[in-house]
Formats: sequence, structure tokens, C-alpha cells
Amino acid sequence: MEGLKFIDTPALILDKAVLLKNIQEMSALANKAGVKLRPHIKAHKCSKISNLQIANGASGITVAKVSEAEVMFSAGIKDILIAYQLINTEKINRVISLIKKGASISCLLDNLCQTKKLNNAAKENNLIIDTYVEVDSGLKRTGLEPEDVVGFVNELKSFDGLRFKGILTHAGQVYGALKVNVPAIGHQEGMIMEKVAKSLENAGFVDFEVSVGATPTVKYSAYNPKVTEIRPGNYVFNDAIQVGLGTAERDRCSLKVLTTVISKPAPDRIIIDAGSKTLALDKGAHGTEVVTGFGIVNGYPNLILERLSEEHGVIKVSSAGKVPAIGDKILIIPNHACPVANLAEELILIEHGKENESWVIDARGKNK
Amino acid sequence: MEGLKFIDTPALILDKAVLLKNIQEMSALANKAGVKLRPHIKAHKCSKISNLQIANGASGITVAKVSEAEVMFSAGIKDILIAYQLINTEKINRVISLIKKGASISCLLDNLCQTKKLNNAAKENNLIIDTYVEVDSGLKRTGLEPEDVVGFVNELKSFDGLRFKGILTHAGQVYGALKVNVPAIGHQEGMIMEKVAKSLENAGFVDFEVSVGATPTVKYSAYNPKVTEIRPGNYVFNDAIQVGLGTAERDRCSLKVLTTVISKPAPDRIIIDAGSKTLALDKGAHGTEVVTGFGIVNGYPNLILERLSEEHGVIKVSSAGKVPAIGDKILIIPNHACPVANLAEELILIEHGKENESWVIDARGKNK
Repeated sequence: MEGLKFIDTPALILDKAVLLKNIQEMSALANKAGVKLRPHIKAHKCSKISNLQIANGASGITVAKVSEAEVMFSAGIKDILIAYQLINTEKINRVISLIKKGASISCLLDNLCQTKKLNNAAKENNLIIDTYVEVDSGLKRTGLEPEDVVGFVNELKSFDGLRFKGILTHAGQVYGALKVNVPAIGHQEGMIMEKVAKSLENAGFVDFEVSVGATPTVKYSAYNPKVTEIRPGNYVFNDAIQVGLGTAERDRCSLKVLTTVISKPAPDRIIIDAGSKTLALDKGAHGTEVVTGFGIVNGYPNLILERLSEEHGVIKVSSAGKVPAIGDKILIIPNHACPVANLAEELILIEHGKENESWVIDARGKNK
Repeated sequence: MEGLKFIDTPALILDKAVLLKNIQEMSALANKAGVKLRPHIKAHKCSKISNLQIANGASGITVAKVSEAEVMFSAGIKDILIAYQLINTEKINRVISLIKKGASISCLLDNLCQTKKLNNAAKENNLIIDTYVEVDSGLKRTGLEPEDVVGFVNELKSFDGLRFKGILTHAGQVYGALKVNVPAIGHQEGMIMEKVAKSLENAGFVDFEVSVGATPTVKYSAYNPKVTEIRPGNYVFNDAIQVGLGTAERDRCSLKVLTTVISKPAPDRIIIDAGSKTLALDKGAHGTEVVTGFGIVNGYPNLILERLSEEHGVIKVSSAGKVPAIGDKILIIPNHACPVANLAEELILIEHGKENESWVIDARGKNK
């Protein structure tokens, strides 16, 4: 903490050594499983981190939004999967523009309306756009039911502006699960995709990607023999939810929020200068099952971050132990690191406990 | 909706006529109650709106962060209350710098640690800084207990770099209350401050501000004979929580999120392109008591915005009625407008249902 005392707060502190360890370990997992690693950048929205992932073996990146793809392409990354159903003409035009500039873009499909729009745009521009087809492996968000995939991929043949590149799923329901159920969800993610892949092979399709992954599930789904690609995102940071799910130990949480105690109005109450506009209100998909409060107060097991206003965090002193004074700085491990990075403008990197440099979160707020 | 069909999504749509009506009505309330209006800009973080508030009679503004004050001062606003306990040297130095540039800044106190720091900085720079003393009227966040205020204000006399300007409270606990209890909380906010004001008068203090207010409570607290100033914020927009608390009718919600249906994977499920990174996860302080889901799907009473991922909204079709198609655009009234504005880069203003201009949310993300 000594090295952080001159940093104004709230600030996002990123431990460079832990970040690098998290990145390298995921690359090692992908190598061991014999799959490509295409990390989702939504967690960090920072092109410096994307490039570090690429430098450490990632084959490309995944984004949710065209505006994220634009930022990452500007930073030199060419192989980008936009894992999101594109509908609006403006977004499709921006994808076309990126492809014309040399980006290798893949898009995601789960319905004919957007398939037609994307196909028309591709043909008007004499392009062929790579596409993944989304499969629902239990999240019940977007994606086709597994049994409907072969029919849909067969229909795709008639859209000659599009090329079928593979199938994709995201078992995001793991974030609503208990720790004990995580391995089963990961294995099931792989097995559902294996079944769909075999059906596609039986229908004559060859050489397609089978893309899976969320940070908690990849260590189980990546080893499925049919899986070819994983797309974890959060692992660069980890957070209290990952700790609660058993995905990472607390010492592998590379991102923390540095905050200052601004008031101590009662013996059992401390107020810090980080609220929901810094830490976000995420409590995990199922609320309090894997996390307590709105973040872990690092080094103070007796403190619970009980409430968040927009710019205030209200900490309850829940039992005996040391309690920070007004003006003291403390670190919070956020519940969910992804919205936290999206709320900030920069990451302050520390090495050996000292401020080293700052990285702009250049795709922060890019939601179009 | 016809006029919005070419706007890419998700986008924040601001109805200019409703915005103006909300601003003028609050100014009228302040006039009628004979109090100053010093709106909190945290709700909109947009200097164009701050200036509109000033042009319609606001005497100054309230901010939470020095960086918000800097943005607003750059936009021509001079009278700024930073309603937040400043501790960090960097923030205090920036306040001093603003004062030297001609800003009229007031600061907030509730403890001696920050009082000493602010006083030292003022004296080192040969300045006298105006200060409000915060009173806790039931929120149990920051602020002194009412009975401790006179003692604290007496102690302030020995800090000759600071001037006692008034007392301040925020009855934010109203956001955790039921609609039926809102008037009582507002009246109590006024009565607690009246009692403290009388104690201060008995101790010889005269001509100080008595500042109260949250959007739901001002219509009750502003009329207290001792209150001199109100600081509502959210009223410029209103939102689903205000509707739930009975503060505003739905037609007075000026801010909506325009979003596109991107997928319809099941008859009872629709996916839109706005998730927690656009709409935030706020459900009101007490969760589901005054709101249902994560926003009101405008014009579709049969649709409930049931789940938010980061970039996806999952809508449940809960009963018979019209259902939008893939590619259709729909409007969502957010649960809590303040974090929504903070997540976006611009407001798209509409007049007579058509896009008119866009306003940059220039203090977005300014949390230091």
C-alpha cells in the first residue's frame, strides 16, 4: 500500500505480474488442450491488454460490439470475432468498412432476419463474411437450440455472401451456479457442442470451429475432443465472483479498486469514495450465494462492503479487528471486474507494489 | 418511434419538451417555497443541462466530485457546491485551483480530519473556503448526528481558513421506502434540519443555509420554514424508480434507452441490445418493491425486462399482446436514470418525435 499512497481515488489498480500470470496460464491451458484461444475483451476493454494476450499466444480476439472492434483494429489487432447478433444497418456498414481496411472479421448468427441483412450487405460490397452460428448450451439468452443448428447451417448455404466458419456457445449460466456445479456445466458445454459438431459432420460439413468458453468453464470444456477454440474473458482480472465460484484464488485477482476512507460517522460504519459508479452493483447472477456485499475489502476480514450509493461505499465493521482511519486508502476486489473496467478511464499498473504506468481503457463505454 | 428508426442502438433518447417541463416545474416549486434551487448534476453529468437549469432559475449546482466541478466550471458555471467529504491532497489542490480561477466553491464537512486538511490548504493559499456541515437525517451514510452539529460548528470557528456557510442533508433513504412513506420522509428531513437550525440560532449563528433534498422529498421538505435551499438531481429525467415512488408519472420520464431486438430464440423470450453496461443493474434500494425487472418496456405492458447480461437484455413475454420483431426498435424507461447517463457518451435529443441534436455527457465517468 505504501507505493499507492499518492494515487488519487477511486482508481483501478492492476498488478502487472498477476495479470501476466493469468494471461500465460490461460495460453498454457489452450496449448495443452490443443485449442485456439480467442479471449473476449469485454472484461478489460483495453487494447494494451488485448495485445498482451496476442503476444502470449491468443489467435485473435472476441468482442461484443462493432465499436470495440474498431478500437482494437486501430490498435493493430486484425482477427476479430464479433460475438453478437448484428441487425442495425449502421453497425453492418461499419463491419464492412473494417473488412475493407483489412480486418478479418467473423460475425454471429442465430436468426434469418440478421442473416439476410448481413448477406445483402456482403453481396453489395462483393465480400464474403465469415460467420459463426450460436448454439444455446443452457444460458437461455441468444442462440439456437442444439437440435435446430444443422437445419440453420443448411439454410446458410443459400446465402452466398456468407461463409459458415463454425459453431459457438457461451455457458454463461455458470455465473448463476454454485461452486460445486461448475465442472458439470463446463463438461456439458463441451458435450452439447460435441453433439452438434457430430451432427454437422454427419450432414457433410467439415473443418469448422467449435468455440466455447467462459472463464469458469474453459478448464472443463476445452478438453472436449471436438472443441477447437475457447473464448474466456474475465480471467485476465478475476474477481470476487470467480473466487466464489472456485475459479481463482484471491491472490490471482489482478484488478483492485483503490479507495479512500472519507468519513467514519459511527463506530460500526466507514464510508469510502467508491460507489456503484466505480464498483457496479453486480452481485452474481444469483445474488448473494457466491459473494458477500459489493466487493471484498482486501486485508480486512472484519469489514463488509454492505451498501453502495453512486459515489459512496458503506462498509460495516462486522467484528473486532483493525479498522482503517479517515484518509486511509484501502483496496477492494470487485465482485465483477468487467463492468468496473467499463466505468473507468484508466488502469494504473503496479509492479513490485509501486505505480509503474497507466493504460487507457480505450474501448470503455463502446456499446454500439 | 418513426423518427428514431435511423438511430443506432443502444442510445439515450432525451425528450427535450419533457426535460424543459421538469426543469421549469422544479424551479417553480423552489420559487413557491421561497428557497434556492441548487440541483445535483450527478443525474445527467451534462453541462448543457446544467446551464439549462441555471437559465431557468437555479442559483448554482451541486456535484459529488471535483472532476465534475472542473467540467461544469469549464462550461461557465461558477457557483458549485461539492457535496462530498474531500480528503485526498490531490482533490483539495484541484479545488484550490478552481477557486483561484474564479469559481465559487463550497465544500462539505463531517469530520475533523478533512476539516484540518482543507483548512491547512486554504490557509497556505490565503483563501477562505465556504463549508457546509453534513447532517444525517436518516440515510446512515455520511453526516453528523443532528445532536452533534452545534458542537462541530462551534469547533469550526477555530479553523480560520474555513467559513461556515450552512447545514446540509440528503434523505436518500427515501429510495428504499415504499410510496406511501415518501411524504413522511420528506417532512421529517425538513423537521430534523429545522431543529438543528434552531439549535444553531440559539448558539448565536445567523444567516446560514439549510440545504435539503432528493427528488422525491423536496416537495415536502422545501416548505419547511427553516429550509433555504434544495438540491434535487434526478427530476430532470425521472425514471422507473421515481414512478414507483409516486414522484412522477411515466409521461414525465424524459430519458429513455432506445434499443433493438436482436434475437427471438423462443416464443416467450426476446433479446435486446442493451444490458447492464447501458441500463445498469439498479433495482432501487429495496430491490423489487417499487420496480419490476430492469426497466419499463415502453408501450409493451406484456413485456418484462427480466435479466441483464453486460450487453444483452432478456425480455420475457409475460402475457398476450403485441410483441416486437427482430430488428424492431423499442424504448426502455430505465430503473435509475443517473447511472445510465454515466455509462453513455451522448444524449440524443428529440423534439416532436424527431432527432434534433446530440449533447455530450461531458462529466461522464468523472469519479475523482
